[in-house]
Formats: sequence, structure tokens, C-alpha cells
Amino acid sequence: MLRTHTCGELRLADVGKKVTLTGWVQRVRNKGGLIWVDLRDRYGVTQLIFEEGSTSDTLLEEAASLGREYVVQAEGDVIERASKNDKIPTGAIEIKTSSLRILNAAKVPPFIIEDETDGGEDLRMKYRYLDLRRNVVREKLLLRHKMMQETRKYMDSVGFMEVETPVLIKSTPEGARDFVVPSRIHPGEFYALPQSPQTFKQLLMVSGFDRYFQIVKCFRDEDLRADRQPEFTQIDCEMSFVEQEDILQTFEGMIKHLFSTVKGIELERIARMSYADAMKYYGNDKPDIRFDMRFTELNELAQNRGFNVFDSAELVVGICAKGAGEYTRKQLDELTNWLKRPQIGAKGLVYVKCNTDGTFKSSVDKFYSQQDLGAWAEKMGAQTGDLLLVLSGEASTVRKQLSELRLKMGEDLNLRDKSVYKPLWILDFPLLEWDEETQRYHAMHHPFTSPKKEDMELLDTDPGKVRANAYDLVINGVEIGGGSIRIHDKNTQKLMFSRLGFSEEEAQKQFGFLMEAFEYGAPPHGGIAFGFDRLCAIFGGSDSIRDFIAFPKNNAGKDVMIDSPSSISDEQLKELSIGLINKNR
Amino acid sequence: MLRTHTCGELRLADVGKKVTLTGWVQRVRNKGGLIWVDLRDRYGVTQLIFEEGSTSDTLLEEAASLGREYVVQAEGDVIERASKNDKIPTGAIEIKTSSLRILNAAKVPPFIIEDETDGGEDLRMKYRYLDLRRNVVREKLLLRHKMMQETRKYMDSVGFMEVETPVLIKSTPEGARDFVVPSRIHPGEFYALPQSPQTFKQLLMVSGFDRYFQIVKCFRDEDLRADRQPEFTQIDCEMSFVEQEDILQTFEGMIKHLFSTVKGIELERIARMSYADAMKYYGNDKPDIRFDMRFTELNELAQNRGFNVFDSAELVVGICAKGAGEYTRKQLDELTNWLKRPQIGAKGLVYVKCNTDGTFKSSVDKFYSQQDLGAWAEKMGAQTGDLLLVLSGEASTVRKQLSELRLKMGEDLNLRDKSVYKPLWILDFPLLEWDEETQRYHAMHHPFTSPKKEDMELLDTDPGKVRANAYDLVINGVEIGGGSIRIHDKNTQKLMFSRLGFSEEEAQKQFGFLMEAFEYGAPPHGGIAFGFDRLCAIFGGSDSIRDFIAFPKNNAGKDVMIDSPSSISDEQLKELSIGLINKNR
Repeated sequence: MLRTHTCGELRLADVGKKVTLTGWVQRVRNKGGLIWVDLRDRYGVTQLIFEEGSTSDTLLEEAASLGREYVVQAEGDVIERASKNDKIPTGAIEIKTSSLRILNAAKVPPFIIEDETDGGEDLRMKYRYLDLRRNVVREKLLLRHKMMQETRKYMDSVGFMEVETPVLIKSTPEGARDFVVPSRIHPGEFYALPQSPQTFKQLLMVSGFDRYFQIVKCFRDEDLRADRQPEFTQIDCEMSFVEQEDILQTFEGMIKHLFSTVKGIELERIARMSYADAMKYYGNDKPDIRFDMRFTELNELAQNRGFNVFDSAELVVGICAKGAGEYTRKQLDELTNWLKRPQIGAKGLVYVKCNTDGTFKSSVDKFYSQQDLGAWAEKMGAQTGDLLLVLSGEASTVRKQLSELRLKMGEDLNLRDKSVYKPLWILDFPLLEWDEETQRYHAMHHPFTSPKKEDMELLDTDPGKVRANAYDLVINGVEIGGGSIRIHDKNTQKLMFSRLGFSEEEAQKQFGFLMEAFEYGAPPHGGIAFGFDRLCAIFGGSDSIRDFIAFPKNNAGKDVMIDSPSSISDEQLKELSIGLINKNR
Repeated sequence: MLRTHTCGELRLADVGKKVTLTGWVQRVRNKGGLIWVDLRDRYGVTQLIFEEGSTSDTLLEEAASLGREYVVQAEGDVIERASKNDKIPTGAIEIKTSSLRILNAAKVPPFIIEDETDGGEDLRMKYRYLDLRRNVVREKLLLRHKMMQETRKYMDSVGFMEVETPVLIKSTPEGARDFVVPSRIHPGEFYALPQSPQTFKQLLMVSGFDRYFQIVKCFRDEDLRADRQPEFTQIDCEMSFVEQEDILQTFEGMIKHLFSTVKGIELERIARMSYADAMKYYGNDKPDIRFDMRFTELNELAQNRGFNVFDSAELVVGICAKGAGEYTRKQLDELTNWLKRPQIGAKGLVYVKCNTDGTFKSSVDKFYSQQDLGAWAEKMGAQTGDLLLVLSGEASTVRKQLSELRLKMGEDLNLRDKSVYKPLWILDFPLLEWDEETQRYHAMHHPFTSPKKEDMELLDTDPGKVRANAYDLVINGVEIGGGSIRIHDKNTQKLMFSRLGFSEEEAQKQFGFLMEAFEYGAPPHGGIAFGFDRLCAIFGGSDSIRDFIAFPKNNAGKDVMIDSPSSISDEQLKELSIGLINKNR
């Protein structure tokens, strides 16, 4: 090694040792005859000192000439610092430097490499390798490293086998768009990159592997939104001979293990909620339950009092914002405008302030008596000083809008503390959802999800009502994982494909191998997959996954650092038997 | 869980327990009023018993009707077996079955699911999910699972950070062919799948990550030979502030840890050999040193004695096969024919038998006296009873041929014991190798490998003589890993690209981001990558990597189970702005 110690490990007990350190120059302070250099590496910062008199003039000059981010090797004695810095673990010592070697010079970096940087997003992405030097960014990736190790430790300890499934697989039109890979050896044919190892993990269950997991890259060629990546990482798992309860308990164990080992947080039993309740009380299948503020439906109390907006609405529904009764007219107008933006699309907002004197002040005083409003307040569990916020309209639309409002109020009232974690299982998802565009039912999770036995008869009469053995794990309003008990017999799987509008040929062509596998002794099985990037972001207290990925792509799916995607040679195209069309569209 | 226990865990101490087991029917033996069923899962086999009198007739009939590979759930009492089977851990007990539930029926599998199967390669690949049910195959994947866990445990313990590098990267013409992925959002542009994360891991060193590792899928679009896969797995590693010795010691530690924890073998210090010595003494840069049989060069002793074949040869070189002096004329003819096959291409074989009476019998007695042959024998360290095998010709050709012969003799004489492991570091590889076809030098490892400082001046005068700071790890004649100390300054890297025939523009276009990164403070660094599939195969005592991959592709790069690659829709092609050409070539 070019060093005897890292820049993070020397302490008072090391005083007197002769050491060699290597690292990057973080800062040079030059007070004439006295120069301090902060030397940084992954492990910390150690101060080098060069003093006129005890240091040769050449060495002093060398030290003075060091630029930011120079890579150096310094040799010297560990001495006790006169004025200690208790903010860093090495703050009690410094290195009286006797020799210095520049291992590599550095140009002035395009942005400041400190926790607070002046570099904008684009610049930091282009020079991602410099951005990764910043402690705050590296720590996120260290967290990810720990999460990976602890995930595997837990999975291994409960008997799961890590199996790598292939990356070059087969394109299936179901679901999101595949990335494809032209085959050179088989002209005109293509591999596809997996959106998930779903069919492979089910086949591993048919193989009797019993418990499978993998931390695996998956790919989706979607139109990118903020915080979506074309390649992302999943913790992918499957178990045999299980019922839903076994999966919930096993992965509750995993989540608890991660919180305990990575964050030092001992979680209580994870709460559970049906999809129906989540929609009814939170307007959302991934409710943030760090705060209550549940929906209260007010149709009975609010309709037929002459207020046409409510009377004509399918649903009148409100939330009670505790302690927000002092909101000013201006604040309420801002809330209303926020709700009316096209992203939310509400027509308006009705509010009721629960005054401290027991009276009510509302935006609909014309239509409702104090008694009426008192009844609302009572039903919503409001007390004096609270603020009732009520929306109305078509049920599913208004629930979405109120859900957004609830989250905003949670934010405004500081009820969404990033250091508080409230995981939640959402259960009993619908099997199918109606798609207006294609005028047919789609699988809400995927076509391999099993319907609940007791709902099977509804499949012909009222397909939208059939519930699935499907579950999601939500943490603080973010969907972290989801899975289901799978179909494991050919006939049910065939039925499902037909209900989803597959012709028998299509089903056979795309999933024939899976249905055939089901005929050779497939065990009952189920599984779950977790979005690993998002799980890391949640653990890191961040809303964005990008900083938890070493080399992310931008919103246009580009890696601007290496300039990818990019053109390839005509020779390559020819070898692959493909040509470009519409190149200039 | 649908079971209380697995099929591998019940013992005599469990007698009297009421249990529920699930698994696959391995075998049914029906002796009229007495039926035994072997129930199998990943963990073992447990015997179910059904007896007339104590079992209802319905249950007896059900048991009798079970077919191979049916998936069942059985409930019953653990009882002591009358005749115990000490070959299996559960052999002391059986389950007196009180109820039976068929969870899934099974068609008769296309081949027998036992350690010895009647299924051919093609059939087993098509039904890979059934092949994976065989214990011998599943055990190989369990070994792989263990190798993965132990690799990460070791790397984590010595401070390496696991970082996922991107899969959608940029195509570079250097090296093997890339698989490419058309971008839909950027028409006419392509991502490429990584052949290795080489540049990314070097950038992570520039980022100060200090120690990086990853067990990662890599991709090469090569013409497939037996036992090559288009996608394969590497243990990929990089370290900063190191010299070659640090890397050798760190990864010697990893290999020892794996042998110790996975195989229970405590390895001695790993031997080291220069590339030059490996070529000189074994004709091969990956010698199998489980046995000695080194090359002895005989030019001085064998030339100018009138034997024209030797006289006109650049090199006369032989091996001494200990104890093979009794080889018959027929055996020697077979060896000669084996050497003359086009795969080896030797012109002939000269042998000398060291007879027990101290005389020599050779195929060139006409040209060489007993004294001559005695001198050969002495130089080759031969004793009575040994066999000398001598080849001649152009030096590099004859070394290759003799290397093949050495390995064959090692095989024939049982010197290549699969339970013996002799790892070996090969050091001081040449930096460049001359390519006859393109008439230029190629990087022997890759263009990022640093030349040895003391050889730098040869770069202009005798480039082929420049040695690199490069090393390979070889186990039992198989290359398992390789790496180098990298170039870390822009000027050397530029020089290297120019020596490799890159124009300045090409170098800039393909690797500009790396050379730019080197200007912002790149530390000295180096690394290594191990072929994980092959490492697993070596640990499993197998020559073939295919069984250590859950879902391998065949020699034509096809996954015959899922039928991939395959055609995609015109709509998909159109979205990707590509068209097919030469489809019917």
C-alpha cells in the first residue's frame, strides 16, 4: 500500500507514530510560515502541518503550491494538535509532514467538492465521478452497500437461495415496453432485457428451489418522468408452499432486520389495511400513515341542503386538519388555487374553521347552519381550533384530489417527519382494473396473480370486484414492494389469459413454456419484489432515488458523462442485420 | 406454510410428532396392502407409509394413484422405521400418513428426475426447470449461492464497497463485440451492454471510493464456442493507492477464504510464476501445476547429430512422463496420431523409453547413441521406467503442442486430481501482442493496463518486450481471474492509445471522459476480475460452466426453454426506428 493509515483512523493514541497518508487535498491554509493541508479520503480528513523552521523551504513551497483535489502522499509524525477540532474523529492530532509526493495533479474542479456544492444538476451529472467525491453523495452509496449486505444476510439466514436469472430474455408485449437486443447470430431476431425475473422465479419454484431471491437489475423502456430510471434494481423473491400470511411475515422480518441493522430502529408490528379501506380513508393505495387525517364522507350531512355543488356530487368528502383553524384567508386562497392547478384539477374547496369560541366559520355559511357545520365537525372528530377541508365530485376523482390535499396539509403541518417510519401492508387488491382506452380489463399487478378463491365466481359476473391474493408494502406513502400468491395450475392461468384478452395463440406463444411447466408438478407459490433504489432513498431520508444510484441516467434516459446512447458504426448495424429508419424525424 | 417440516429434517427424536409435509413424489412402491411413497423437496426425502388396515381404503387408493412428480401435502405421525435406511438423514423414520392432498398433478416428465438421467442435453435444456429438480444440478447452484455469499462477506470485511455500475452503457469498438440496445427516445442511437465495468470502476477510484467490488453480469457478442456464454458473471474489483503486491495479497485472501469456508480446504501460499517462465516451462500462460512434467529444451543435446527434423527446428523440447516407460507401441502410436490431429497439428513425436535395465529405446535410435539419449534423460531428470516425449519445430507452435501433450499425459497418468487445488499467480505479462491480421500491436489485457516503469523505454524500440503490471490467477490450468495496475495519468493513457493505433479523435470520442477524469485527481489504482461461473465450476470439480448457471444458453446463444431470441413486432421495430435487412440471408 502507498499508505500506512487512512485519513480517518489516527487518534491521540497514535501520537509519536511515523505514518504515510494518501488522499486528496481538500483545503490549504497558508499563514506565511505555517501551512495546514486537509487531506481527505473515503475514510475521513486528516490535517497535515508544515512549519517554517522545522520544515525545509522546498517542502514549504511544495505544500504552498498544492491545489484543490491534488492527489498526494505525505509522510510524517503524528503529533497532538494545539487547538483540537472536536467535529472530526481525527481532530485531536495532525501530521508533522517530513515529505510530500504529488501522485497526481488536478485541474480546478468545475464545482466545489463539499457537502454544499455550487454545481447544478447537469454539471454534476456530467462530472458524476467528482460529484461522487462529495461526502453526502458517497454516504448514500455506502448506505446502499450496507442495505445490500444486510438484505442478503437476512435472506440467506432464512433459507433463500440467491439465483441469477438471465438478462438476455424474450420480449413480451404485456406490461411496459421492453428494451430489445438484436441478435447477430440469428438475423431478424431479438433478445429483450427483463422488466422483472417474474417467469424465471416461478420456474425456479417449479424446480423445487423452494426459496429464491436476487438483488437484480431490471429494465423498462418507458417515457421517463422525474425519478424514474430505465434501469433499476429490485430485491426479487419467491417462496413455495406458502400462503399470503407466510410471505407477509417473512418480509416483515426482512424490513425489520434492515431497519434494525442499518438504522438502529426497532419497528413495531407492521400495520395492515385493505385496498378498499386505503381508498376510502386515504384516497390512495399507498397512504402515508405517519399522520391520521382520514377521510370522512359527508354525503348524508351535506347533501340536500340547497348547495348545488354538493347535491350534484357523487361524493362529498373531507379531512380535519388538527390545529389549522387559524389559517388566514390568504392561506386558504392559496390552498384553493393549489387545488385548482391542472395537476390536481379540483373545482374548488370548502372550508370550515372550528373557532375557539365553539362557532364555525365556513365558505358555505349561506347554505349551512351552525348546527349543520357542528354535525360535520362531530362526524370528523374535530375540536375547536381545527380546520375542515371538504371536496366534492365524482368519487374516484375527488378521492385523488383529497389525497393530494391531505399530503400537502401533512407537509404544511410538519406531520411527515423523515426520521419516523410507518410501514404498512396494503392487502386485497382488485385482480383486474378497467382500462378506458383499450376498453378491456388489465391485470392490476400482472397476469400471474391468483384471484381469491371466494371471489372466483365473480370473474364472470363482475370481474372488477374480484380480489387478488396481492399485497403491497408501503412506507411513509411510498410503495416499496408488491407481490402476490401466484396461479400455479394451467387451467386457471389459461382462464386468466383469456379474461385479459389474450387469444389462445398469443398466450401460447408468449407464455406457453410457463403453462407447460405448470403441468409437470408446480407447487403453490408466491412472492414479492421490492424497489431497491427507492428503499435506499427512504432509508436515506430522501425523496429522490437518483443520488442512491452511482451512475444514474438523466430524465431523457441519457448518461451525459459517457455520452450514451450514441451512434454505432454502419459495420455494427450491418452485422446485426438492421438499418436505421426515420433517422431525421 | 402448507407444511410443518421440510422433507429433510425429521429424525428419530421427532417420533410421535404429528407433521404435515409437502413435496414431489419421487417414487411409489406398492406391495398390495402396503404402499411407500418417497416425498422429495429441496431439503431431502422422507418416506410416507400407507398400510391396509390402519389406513382407509380411499387413502390407500389415493396413494396408489400418485404419479411421479405429483405435488402433494401429507399429514401423519412420525414413526420409527422397521428397516432403517442409513443412506439418507431421514432414514430412521417414516410418516404414517393419515391424510393426503394432491396440490398439483404432473404429467410424466420427459426424462427421469434422478442423479443419473436418461435426458439428453437438448431435452434437459428445453425443460431446464425439470433438470434443475435433479439433486446434482441443484447442488451446483447451491454451491454458487454459497460462493456468492462468502465472496461478499470477505470483500465487505476488508472494506470493499459494493457498487452497481450501469448495464445500459456505450459501445466501444475495442475488444470483443458489444451487444447493443436501440434507444427509442433517441432514434438512431444505441446503448451497449458492458463487456466489463472497467471504465466505471476506474471512475469510482477517481471518485475516491478506494475499494470497490461487484458480482456483475457482463456480455460479449462472440461466436460461441462450447462453454462460452453470451452473458456471464464476474467478481469485479478495484483498489486505490496500491501496488501489484497489495492486490495479490488481498485476493489471495479472498481465494483462501472461499476455499476455507466453501470447501473446508486450507490453502498454502499461492505460488507465483512469470509469464516468461510459464511459457518456457509449460508452453502455456495458465499451467496446471498439480503435476510437474516441466519442459526441458534439448537443442544443444539433440541438434547437429544428423537428425534433420531436429536440426532444422527452432526448438527441440520435451517432457518426462514419470513411470510411463512401459507404454506399448500401440499407446505410443495413439499418442502420435492424437498429436497429428489438425487441432494439435504436430508433425510427429519422438519418444525415449528409459528401460529398467538402464538402456534406452527410442524412435530415433538411428541418429542418437545410448550416450546421447542418456544425456537427454539426465537433463530431463528422468529415471528408469520413465518416458521422454520430444517435439520440435517453430518455438511458439511446438510449445503449444507440447503443452497439450503434457496435459494429456497428466490426464492419462491420473495426475490431475479434481479434489486437489493448486492456484498460481502468473505475473509480468507482456503489455502488447502483435496481431498478424491487422499488422499492429494489441493490448494483451486492455488499453488501461500500465507498463512496467523499467520497461517504458522499450515502448519505442521493442514494444513486444514491454512488460505490464498485469497478473492472472490460474487454478488447475484454468484462468480464473486477471487484472492489472492501471494507468492513472492522462499522458500515459494518451500514449498508450496512440501506440495501439487509435487516432487522437477516436481515443477522445471513446474514452475522452476517462482521460478527462484523470485530470481531476486520479489516484494510483489497480484491480482484478474473476470469472465467477468458471470459479464455481472449479469449486464444483467440473469442467463445464453450464451446469453452474441456472438458465444457460446453448452453443447457438439460444435459450431453447423460452425460445429466445425471437422475432419482435413491426410496431416495436418502428418505435425503435430500425428495420430489418438481409432477413433471409
